[in-house]
Amino acid sequence: MTDIHTLTRELHTSHSSKIVMMVADGLGGLPIEPHGPTELEAAKTPNLDRLARRGVQGSSIPVLPGITPGSGPGHLGLFGYDPLQYVIGRGALEATGIGFHLDEHDVAVRCNFCTLDSDGNITDRRAGRIPTEESTKLVEKLRGIDIPGVEIFVEPVKEHRCVVVFRAPGLGDRVADTDPQETGVPPLEPASEDEASRKTAEVASEFLRQARQILADQPRANFLTMRGFAEKPKLPPYDEVYGLKAAAIAVYPMYKGLAKLVGMEILGKASTLEEQIALLEQVYDQYDFFFVHFKYTDSTGEDGNFAEKVQRIEQFDAVFPRIEQLKPEVLIVTGDHSTPSYLRSHSWHPVPTLLVSDCCRPDGCDSFSERSALQGGLGHFEAKYLMCLALANAGRLGKYGA
Amino acid sequence: MTDIHTLTRELHTSHSSKIVMMVADGLGGLPIEPHGPTELEAAKTPNLDRLARRGVQGSSIPVLPGITPGSGPGHLGLFGYDPLQYVIGRGALEATGIGFHLDEHDVAVRCNFCTLDSDGNITDRRAGRIPTEESTKLVEKLRGIDIPGVEIFVEPVKEHRCVVVFRAPGLGDRVADTDPQETGVPPLEPASEDEASRKTAEVASEFLRQARQILADQPRANFLTMRGFAEKPKLPPYDEVYGLKAAAIAVYPMYKGLAKLVGMEILGKASTLEEQIALLEQVYDQYDFFFVHFKYTDSTGEDGNFAEKVQRIEQFDAVFPRIEQLKPEVLIVTGDHSTPSYLRSHSWHPVPTLLVSDCCRPDGCDSFSERSALQGGLGHFEAKYLMCLALANAGRLGKYGA
Repeated sequence: MTDIHTLTRELHTSHSSKIVMMVADGLGGLPIEPHGPTELEAAKTPNLDRLARRGVQGSSIPVLPGITPGSGPGHLGLFGYDPLQYVIGRGALEATGIGFHLDEHDVAVRCNFCTLDSDGNITDRRAGRIPTEESTKLVEKLRGIDIPGVEIFVEPVKEHRCVVVFRAPGLGDRVADTDPQETGVPPLEPASEDEASRKTAEVASEFLRQARQILADQPRANFLTMRGFAEKPKLPPYDEVYGLKAAAIAVYPMYKGLAKLVGMEILGKASTLEEQIALLEQVYDQYDFFFVHFKYTDSTGEDGNFAEKVQRIEQFDAVFPRIEQLKPEVLIVTGDHSTPSYLRSHSWHPVPTLLVSDCCRPDGCDSFSERSALQGGLGHFEAKYLMCLALANAGRLGKYGA
Repeated sequence: MTDIHTLTRELHTSHSSKIVMMVADGLGGLPIEPHGPTELEAAKTPNLDRLARRGVQGSSIPVLPGITPGSGPGHLGLFGYDPLQYVIGRGALEATGIGFHLDEHDVAVRCNFCTLDSDGNITDRRAGRIPTEESTKLVEKLRGIDIPGVEIFVEPVKEHRCVVVFRAPGLGDRVADTDPQETGVPPLEPASEDEASRKTAEVASEFLRQARQILADQPRANFLTMRGFAEKPKLPPYDEVYGLKAAAIAVYPMYKGLAKLVGMEILGKASTLEEQIALLEQVYDQYDFFFVHFKYTDSTGEDGNFAEKVQRIEQFDAVFPRIEQLKPEVLIVTGDHSTPSYLRSHSWHPVPTLLVSDCCRPDGCDSFSERSALQGGLGHFEAKYLMCLALANAGRLGKYGA
């Protein structure tokens, strides 16, 4: 089976057209009561409804039917990378999520501060969930660790969690977790699963040896365990696979990081959607493709706050006139997955997705919603094909075969 | 993943049922103005609409979402051959397009007459686009080339183009193009990329040596370059994969050629759709499957002539009463891709597709169109599955597993 990018690499053509992809994180929803509307159906979205009359919509399946994605696979799908083929390891995703941009020689590791008793057995795998301020100070101490030939980064995450990144040529990432997943036993030694990862295991072992000394006098967080050793994922970049100069306009580090992994340029320091759109307007001439990420449709869904998610969708709707003023050749509105308030979590439900261009085939839908998407001209489709549709509608994809 | 034909080979059963596949090339379209109808929606199609009430329709995706196929991949999909798995090389498609039926020992090459200066450098890669009458005469001269052990065919195409076919056992097709894609440099020597192709490269080299002598005194077309070396594609034939004795009733050489590549028998010399249907009536008892190809819905679309494409669809509609008289167990109406007049080219848009049988599940649609297809019982499906649906509805496909 030909890989999508084998096709797009061969077929992409140059064009002056612009593609704007507006991602409302966790956009899809569910009724909160039987026969009620979803969040998107309850929201007043005059702008999206107007666009729906010009465009074509459908239901985007993030991974496969029934499969709920995390943010990593959800966005990889939207970006056109098969989320079952490309996997972002746990350590790499954690580093990405705190805004650490991985280098090709990096191995990132998720760490938990833990409590050891005097025999060296774990009594608390999370060191009493120490507050972030406390763990941040410990992280600063750990930055004193020195291993010749290896650059080391230690970054705080939240509470008892931190990230360690080892940077040196030739480090493999097949190293087993040192967290034994139980108490009353000692942490495991880092064990490598192949030859290329032996150096990583040795470096990790030395790091842990020094950390044990540095943390020895701590009452709670007197050691740490390591999980999810992961290299930077090998994702071919946007300019190479699509011929697109791409920019990401996001607020949160995770989404900036995911965009960076596929070669997008990360722009500005917007902290609101309105600032994001202002930035889009400023840089519009300089890129071919724009990924604009809006977080709050997801976080309100995770809070189980139906009314608040409705409001956030209305806030999202309100910026579209400004985007339409830019006249992008292709405008896409979608989400990386559904986050129904009813479930208070990510879900597997398809995501209503709208594509507007001068050569999409209108489908008679007069509003944008989960129910409309079922009548839409894009049908049900796997998210990984969205970029092919975007390129085709942008006049940026040539003919396959003669 | 199990190949479609592994399944159909195992499951096909014999039956006296008939399948008629009516292909209107480039059938799918777009509105020519906002909110207007597509060509198919604008056309008066009382017969197709009547059939739509009996049948089931859907949207056929030729290759993958967003991917625009050429005629080769478009037809392979309809014939049930995954167009990403089976590729017809450029030379083989060019030969097929002019009605040259390739043999299993053939390697076909697309050639361009070109102009060399006295130093042997290319000054014009297309020899001034010499008229077809002139290149036809040069082709006749080139037929004098003799290489022991190799049968050689030289056929004119259009203007500066021709096809050369080398026929001998053991010829590989991994030979690089000799066209350097620029002027001011000499043509490249044919270079083989593997051992099996070395003989082909040697034959091509000797062909070019003799051609240079033959063409030496020509003012413009004093040499030729070679591109797209390609064997006959290895497509398992219809009788073997489906148990069908299949016939093709087409007007244009390209479609006869594509049908021949999958083992269909090419019938008659019809030059109009009405003659094609008359031929279908004559031979109806002698085959299980009929592919009837109608070209003008594509060519009018490529001309950007919406009104003419509408008329051609109406001409196509008018023959269905005669086909219904034959009472085929399965009647399919589809296209190999869309060719919207609005785009004046092939496109990626799904193709409205109708299947009528006594055991299809009607879907409540009362007309045949792109919009109806969105409500249809076949949903969105990849064209490569259409033959499985045809066989199933024809009672020609057994149960998978017990």
